[in-house]
Amino acid sequence: MNKEIKKDFPILDQEIHGHRFTYLDSAATTQKPIAVLEAVNDYYKNYNANPHRGAYYLSEKSTEIYENTRTVVKEFIGAKNEKEIIFVKNATEAFNLLAHSYGMNFIKEGDEIVISVAEHHSNLVPWQQVAKAKGALLKYLYLDEEGIITEEEIANKITNKTKIVSVTHVSNVLGTIQPIKKIIEKAHSVGAVAFIDIAQSVPHMKIDVSQLDADAAVFSGHKMLAPMGIGVLYGKEELLEKMPPFMCGGDMIEYVTEQDTTFAELPNKFEGGTQNVEGAAGLTSAIQYLNEIGMDNVEQIEDELVSETLKRLEELPFVTVYGTKDTKKKSGVISFNVEGIHPHDVASILDSYGVAIRVGRHCAYPLLNYMGVNAGTCRVSFYIYNTMEDVEALIEGLKNTRKWLGYGSK
Amino acid sequence: MNKEIKKDFPILDQEIHGHRFTYLDSAATTQKPIAVLEAVNDYYKNYNANPHRGAYYLSEKSTEIYENTRTVVKEFIGAKNEKEIIFVKNATEAFNLLAHSYGMNFIKEGDEIVISVAEHHSNLVPWQQVAKAKGALLKYLYLDEEGIITEEEIANKITNKTKIVSVTHVSNVLGTIQPIKKIIEKAHSVGAVAFIDIAQSVPHMKIDVSQLDADAAVFSGHKMLAPMGIGVLYGKEELLEKMPPFMCGGDMIEYVTEQDTTFAELPNKFEGGTQNVEGAAGLTSAIQYLNEIGMDNVEQIEDELVSETLKRLEELPFVTVYGTKDTKKKSGVISFNVEGIHPHDVASILDSYGVAIRVGRHCAYPLLNYMGVNAGTCRVSFYIYNTMEDVEALIEGLKNTRKWLGYGSK
Repeated sequence: MNKEIKKDFPILDQEIHGHRFTYLDSAATTQKPIAVLEAVNDYYKNYNANPHRGAYYLSEKSTEIYENTRTVVKEFIGAKNEKEIIFVKNATEAFNLLAHSYGMNFIKEGDEIVISVAEHHSNLVPWQQVAKAKGALLKYLYLDEEGIITEEEIANKITNKTKIVSVTHVSNVLGTIQPIKKIIEKAHSVGAVAFIDIAQSVPHMKIDVSQLDADAAVFSGHKMLAPMGIGVLYGKEELLEKMPPFMCGGDMIEYVTEQDTTFAELPNKFEGGTQNVEGAAGLTSAIQYLNEIGMDNVEQIEDELVSETLKRLEELPFVTVYGTKDTKKKSGVISFNVEGIHPHDVASILDSYGVAIRVGRHCAYPLLNYMGVNAGTCRVSFYIYNTMEDVEALIEGLKNTRKWLGYGSK
Repeated sequence: MNKEIKKDFPILDQEIHGHRFTYLDSAATTQKPIAVLEAVNDYYKNYNANPHRGAYYLSEKSTEIYENTRTVVKEFIGAKNEKEIIFVKNATEAFNLLAHSYGMNFIKEGDEIVISVAEHHSNLVPWQQVAKAKGALLKYLYLDEEGIITEEEIANKITNKTKIVSVTHVSNVLGTIQPIKKIIEKAHSVGAVAFIDIAQSVPHMKIDVSQLDADAAVFSGHKMLAPMGIGVLYGKEELLEKMPPFMCGGDMIEYVTEQDTTFAELPNKFEGGTQNVEGAAGLTSAIQYLNEIGMDNVEQIEDELVSETLKRLEELPFVTVYGTKDTKKKSGVISFNVEGIHPHDVASILDSYGVAIRVGRHCAYPLLNYMGVNAGTCRVSFYIYNTMEDVEALIEGLKNTRKWLGYGSK
């Protein structure tokens, strides 16, 4: 199936440094299928106009395309209505919106904000800023050996002082799936709001934000086949209603006088300025593409790739894999190190064989510090267009890496 | 020349409601030439990756494309170095960045912020918020009969209490060119910083921010042939250096511990999260396209269209044009009303003839109130792909509008 899917991604059909191109960095950004590129081209060649503001045909079409994406996203993640879907430029903007509009307004001195040590900086640095500005305490949920937040941590760290819990669903470093349902329940039991980072889960598995009962959820389009420049903040209507706007300007107002402004209703209140209709058109196409494959199949494709990769890595005695090896507990991300070789050298040598992996601290310095690998890790991440040939190229490349640096390939 | 240019814009070669399509809303968003769409496709088909973070070929290419755009923008607007160019999603984000990072940190109780009554809400509502939060006074520069800020206003309103002056270069409602050089000089003479909104000028005329000596300047890509989802904040290095970051997350940090973060150098400090490389690739292509035409020619094309339109509108006794009729004092935007017909009806009837114009209050409620036209205006705006046939279609459409509503066409 993935071999067929791969044909829809022209970028994968190229040689890099004389080798077949092996893209293993989809957790950073995914490649785009022809259908998404065509949706973007179709938009610009036929319908482009500034939405919401025009009393003419193309502006109506543009508005229709933009608002239709809201419905498509609503259905894809199981939100209750369109007002709960706010478009942003990326997941980082969404967390900053939550930190500014909720954190800065509802957190008081002595309150506690709880995140996990596995957060991406986008769900970490904004909360540091809120904690500092408000005199609140930023507390961390730590992980067990497998890279998973334990029940004990949830029970002990989330207390009556906790006002915000904001955790990642799937770690962008380890790929481990966190027990977010339990965390959300615990947060609600102490009267806190629960925000989740689903940037690394929504592209890879079926997500239902209503069933999870998250107060807000954040993800980006470019990690799920859509163009760069569009992301989503899901928020429960009652949460978004009580939050003041973040970015002020056109389209998010009801009325403006020289000294005062009243704001628009949801969702417009949070969407100041000309919105990215192109990104919306691409996101609709991306979700349609994923729906046609079926999220169950997406999971299965990744599961097979991850299982095989873990098995093959196990056979390499010079490789240390971090976090759980149980594929039921993880998504399509694997972090590892190669004995005696700096991750950056691993990536460079793999690159010379056309294999693209990510190395470094993956915008998650506290996690890398917690793991005791401040020099970083090698990370491979899979998506629907990857095949067993990609796994083969990775393994062969890793053997060559050792050979190149004089260790032999065993 | 514009007839040749028009061929590069496939969207313009269509019929709307059975009529030749006449697009007169470029001040809201411009159409995109084939070259820009090809640059976007080329990026996704050959080079797409997350920039800055990868040790592999495509990530290096993606970084190169992104950073090259910074250089292209720097040269296009006459900035001194690349650190002064910050990419944002739209002009609204840029003004919110200035309001949060500069306004909220450097404005104190009793300080004064001066804007003009001709501001777009994006350069107005954020300053209202700063003034309210800080107990500062938001003061307005008013306009003369022609729609231009007078020397008297500049002399009287900008005082020793003024800490920020933020004004538009070209009004998005009237098209009038404001004396920004004088305003910037006056701001500096009292020790205030001067920010300018060049969203309606940089697509239409040669701009040199260094020569203007603005401390910051803001514009969006989608109003100058580039894709939606990318905009620019220019800021003098010394200004940006003293401003704290706006959005926190990946890529804008130097080091992160559990409780503390040090931030990256310029320009990364202001670019949190995955950046819109596609938008950057499109913006480079857009600027190259404009450079090939030459900004002098861009100005001349628009000048001819505006002159002819003003002349033809003058012949229609039922049309009132707002602001100056002197084409030397205005850019390619004309606001008007049709006697006895609500602007929305004008737009609807024109739309039935395939003519797309904007109506309403153009995200500038205080200006419309100041002009005494709270019901809004009709606005036509031109760009390089418009032709005299478009002017003809507008004029014929306006005559028909009157006829339809029983006034006759005279």
